[in-house]
Amino acid sequence: MKILLSNDDGVFAEGLSCLHDELAKLHDVTVIAPDRNCSGASNALSLHQPLRIQKMKNDFYSVNGTPSDCVHVGINQFLEEDPQLVVSGINHGANLGDDVIYSGTVAAATEGRYMGLPAIAVSLASKRGEHFQTAAKVVCDMIEHLIAHPLPADQILNINVPDVPYEQLKGVEVTRQGRRHRAESMVKDTDPFGRDIYWYGPAGSEQDAGPGTDFHAIARGYASVTPLSVDMTAYKSLEAMQHWLKKKYNNSSNKEQ
Amino acid sequence: MKILLSNDDGVFAEGLSCLHDELAKLHDVTVIAPDRNCSGASNALSLHQPLRIQKMKNDFYSVNGTPSDCVHVGINQFLEEDPQLVVSGINHGANLGDDVIYSGTVAAATEGRYMGLPAIAVSLASKRGEHFQTAAKVVCDMIEHLIAHPLPADQILNINVPDVPYEQLKGVEVTRQGRRHRAESMVKDTDPFGRDIYWYGPAGSEQDAGPGTDFHAIARGYASVTPLSVDMTAYKSLEAMQHWLKKKYNNSSNKEQ
Amino acid sequence: MKILLSNDDGVFAEGLSCLHDELAKLHDVTVIAPDRNCSGASNALSLHQPLRIQKMKNDFYSVNGTPSDCVHVGINQFLEEDPQLVVSGINHGANLGDDVIYSGTVAAATEGRYMGLPAIAVSLASKRGEHFQTAAKVVCDMIEHLIAHPLPADQILNINVPDVPYEQLKGVEVTRQGRRHRAESMVKDTDPFGRDIYWYGPAGSEQDAGPGTDFHAIARGYASVTPLSVDMTAYKSLEAMQHWLKKKYNNSSNKEQ
Amino acid sequence: MKILLSNDDGVFAEGLSCLHDELAKLHDVTVIAPDRNCSGASNALSLHQPLRIQKMKNDFYSVNGTPSDCVHVGINQFLEEDPQLVVSGINHGANLGDDVIYSGTVAAATEGRYMGLPAIAVSLASKRGEHFQTAAKVVCDMIEHLIAHPLPADQILNINVPDVPYEQLKGVEVTRQGRRHRAESMVKDTDPFGRDIYWYGPAGSEQDAGPGTDFHAIARGYASVTPLSVDMTAYKSLEAMQHWLKKKYNNSSNKEQ
Repeated sequence: MKILLSNDDGVFAEGLSCLHDELAKLHDVTVIAPDRNCSGASNALSLHQPLRIQKMKNDFYSVNGTPSDCVHVGINQFLEEDPQLVVSGINHGANLGDDVIYSGTVAAATEGRYMGLPAIAVSLASKRGEHFQTAAKVVCDMIEHLIAHPLPADQILNINVPDVPYEQLKGVEVTRQGRRHRAESMVKDTDPFGRDIYWYGPAGSEQDAGPGTDFHAIARGYASVTPLSVDMTAYKSLEAMQHWLKKKYNNSSNKEQ
Repeated sequence: MKILLSNDDGVFAEGLSCLHDELAKLHDVTVIAPDRNCSGASNALSLHQPLRIQKMKNDFYSVNGTPSDCVHVGINQFLEEDPQLVVSGINHGANLGDDVIYSGTVAAATEGRYMGLPAIAVSLASKRGEHFQTAAKVVCDMIEHLIAHPLPADQILNINVPDVPYEQLKGVEVTRQGRRHRAESMVKDTDPFGRDIYWYGPAGSEQDAGPGTDFHAIARGYASVTPLSVDMTAYKSLEAMQHWLKKKYNNSSNKEQ
Repeated sequence: MKILLSNDDGVFAEGLSCLHDELAKLHDVTVIAPDRNCSGASNALSLHQPLRIQKMKNDFYSVNGTPSDCVHVGINQFLEEDPQLVVSGINHGANLGDDVIYSGTVAAATEGRYMGLPAIAVSLASKRGEHFQTAAKVVCDMIEHLIAHPLPADQILNINVPDVPYEQLKGVEVTRQGRRHRAESMVKDTDPFGRDIYWYGPAGSEQDAGPGTDFHAIARGYASVTPLSVDMTAYKSLEAMQHWLKKKYNNSSNKEQ
Repeated sequence: MKILLSNDDGVFAEGLSCLHDELAKLHDVTVIAPDRNCSGASNALSLHQPLRIQKMKNDFYSVNGTPSDCVHVGINQFLEEDPQLVVSGINHGANLGDDVIYSGTVAAATEGRYMGLPAIAVSLASKRGEHFQTAAKVVCDMIEHLIAHPLPADQILNINVPDVPYEQLKGVEVTRQGRRHRAESMVKDTDPFGRDIYWYGPAGSEQDAGPGTDFHAIARGYASVTPLSVDMTAYKSLEAMQHWLKKKYNNSSNKEQ
């Protein structure tokens, strides 16, 4: 299978090279990844300056941009043939619950989806970063699944894996996104010149981590697989809102529909 | 009402000051916006360097970061009291369909939602940028609506408004996100030193712009209001996937649930 | 006189607008300055990404680049007619001794010199930043001098002015660059994620601040005017070194000369 | 000898690893270099954000900053013991004449000088970049020279080497900086969104390239060694200017001296 592999920790990250090595045993893998750590980059695109691509000694490609840039320029310009799958990771650290919206790892997968391709994001749910191998194997399992059971065209998979040896993994659960508490206070500090600065601190703790959530799976030693929709429309709210607008604006349009 | 206003076109954008002036007639408005144009910033957070806040001559605050940074640092650190609403815009240009995922305008609203507040994103659906006033008035209408009918806690409103005088607006429609075609080829070029560079070009044309979509509303002269969910879980896919995983891993966990 | 005015504190700095207002009483002044604070930018040029110029409400032009970029793009592209003088400042803080090599303020003047124009850099030697007016007046005095006594084609003027009312200024001295002690230890810290970071701290104290230096003038209440050469060749060392090389390489070339 | 090696082409540049390998045959070499290409960075310091240092697989250190940052943080914080020499290069492309003021390669050497250490900058004067080895050998020759004949405390060496095999090198000449013509017009273009952008083009051609200049040496197949002074004071101009100021301000100070 032709696979485009990217990440958000940057082209030198251990998780990237571990996943590359595992995927390359079975597949034809091209790596295009950011030249710097892009954690927190979300789906940002570099619209204001041009991208440059550079081949590294290990044949990985390095881009002066975001994870989304890497996938976009790879598919749209750089690869002679479209890949059949986009994989992003292995992120060093969890992407659970609300993390998803900020994650560059998830964003690279989303970008693959927008380019018309099935896509998987994978993270090792730990700051230690010892067992990337386990996450790499879970990805290989899920690819096998996707070949047999393709995802709907507006979905991607977000996988988180506990940092344990593969044999100690309890299993894999399908989950929904949990929720974090509102982030802890940022850290206010002064730089050495006495000027106020503000740093983000670690993410908030779990607020909704009950059964069925990605947090709950990880906490119990399971990998979590969360199918994410790239259509964010809140369908449940459409009707109630339409009612009010009809009264307010007396839309003829709403009758048409 | 206490309102935190931000945008992604930057603290000097015309759409920002127009919306400020309109909101300030009725509300207590604080503006915190990026010091540079952040179109395409999505929900990116500046995790790797500290933020700085600077007060401008017009009492707007300027931040060396992204739209999400502005809202986060504003609520978490800078404002003495929480605002009651976060508004983001008026973006110069549409945020329709897939644009939403890349939009810094929408991201600033999303960040408000994560901080526990109702939030609205608004864009003027035109590159000419003549009738920001119209969009500002639609926002005021929608605030009136939200006061009476609060959104669920995981939703924001994404509003797009045609670039016409308010009197010529056909009405306001509740819509779902449409879809764009896969983006046009990027532009490959060489810089003056002869090195290859790649630019993003304009967004792709509409692929799903049928009745009910945001594209369809705008095309017919209506403002579109799309409620967006910040929970991206694809609930429809959970069950089918769970079935396969149970077979593959023989998870005891799935029985527990 | 047609003057191009720039700075390194950015297009919104108080020192820039103060100097603009004073110069505009007598001259035809165009302001092109960086969109962000560029202290410490030295003569850096943005070779890897394109520059953009934006007109602000006050008719100043803002550039997404360095002080050198502003002067270069202004003269090379943007201004219809060459200015007759480049002025840079008023920097908020001294540019004395070794500061010169790192200063974006001095660099903007140097760039003017490379473009073939006389050039002046000016700094208010204080962190309080109260009497920019005094520095603005000293600049006007020096322009009067330059008109009568043009500088050689490889020199610029670097002016530092004490932060006192003009009437309290003791006078103006021609000086040489002093020397600072090797900078104080940088500040090692950890970011909120526990990763090592290193900050520059304030500049080192004076090492060579004796009579004749810029430090000495400022310390006694005088403005300092230091003519700087943009040719850095250490002419004194040429001969001794030539001797050794002749022996080592037995250069026939050295005989030719 | 303990050597700190840096460059401005970035930690992955071929010229850096070639020079490392040659120096490491005889010396104890630590490499600290920018994580990205910093051509044109001049002496810029990252005063507004903290630096981070990362060890690469080949034991080189990578810094998210400029060449000057690399040398400064290396000596001031990171190395347990001061090096005895700072070397910067091998730059891919010439640093002749006016280039010196913009060059990150020369700046890294200058920073070493400010930190109290002898310093050498070296560039391969060609865009082909074939014979880095030749430049590496000339550096080794010059180190031998410096050990026997230390430079004055305010000077560094700027070396340019023709891109030929070492055996074809005609010799090494001590030179002064030549001068380039005012740079060619920048390139004005539009980005794919129709907005004006401005690119730097190649440097101007030689204006002063006569006998004795660095240009002249390179053109004839010799390496050029230019001693540069980090004191930019234009001593020749001090007296004449002092005369005028005395009349203008009637300085009592000038009598004191």
